[in-house]
Amino acid sequence: MGIIDKLNKDFESRVRLGIMSILMVNDWIDFTEMKTLLDITDGNLASHSSALEKSEYIEVKKEFVGKKPKTSYRVTNRGRAAFNEHLSSLEKLMKSNK
Amino acid sequence: MGIIDKLNKDFESRVRLGIMSILMVNDWIDFTEMKTLLDITDGNLASHSSALEKSEYIEVKKEFVGKKPKTSYRVTNRGRAAFNEHLSSLEKLMKSNK
Repeated sequence: MGIIDKLNKDFESRVRLGIMSILMVNDWIDFTEMKTLLDITDGNLASHSSALEKSEYIEVKKEFVGKKPKTSYRVTNRGRAAFNEHLSSLEKLMKSNK
Repeated sequence: MGIIDKLNKDFESRVRLGIMSILMVNDWIDFTEMKTLLDITDGNLASHSSALEKSEYIEVKKEFVGKKPKTSYRVTNRGRAAFNEHLSSLEKLMKSNK
């Protein structure tokens, strides 16, 4: 077993790290807020959030506000647990550097 | 500017995080040792180490030991600085989670 095996591949990309970090300390966050916080394109956010949804790490809610569609995100319990595990593996790897 | 912009894309993959972590606390490490520590395939190590070499984050030395070719890796000053910066950006992102 290698020293990186406990790092979760689903969280490798910095966009996904960013999405999860934001959702860990917020309840529902909508598409526009998320895009602004991360400073990424619509397509980039759509593709990474859909990957995280597929792994059941986040929930996606679609609704209409007036005539405008609105997409929001929230972390799931499974996502919270997986992300905490990933962070503690990262911390261990970093500590072994010092 | 988004909260993930300071994360270095060259270090996104967990294999590269692993390579850098190992080289931060060692001098030259050879191919076989590295492969064993990370528990990855030859091709995987070759492709990620070559990407890190291209960014001048690591040096690659090829020599013969008897009749056997031997490849070794060492971090560069540039790589050490970039990795430290990446780690401190990661730490900041994590702290904002808690």
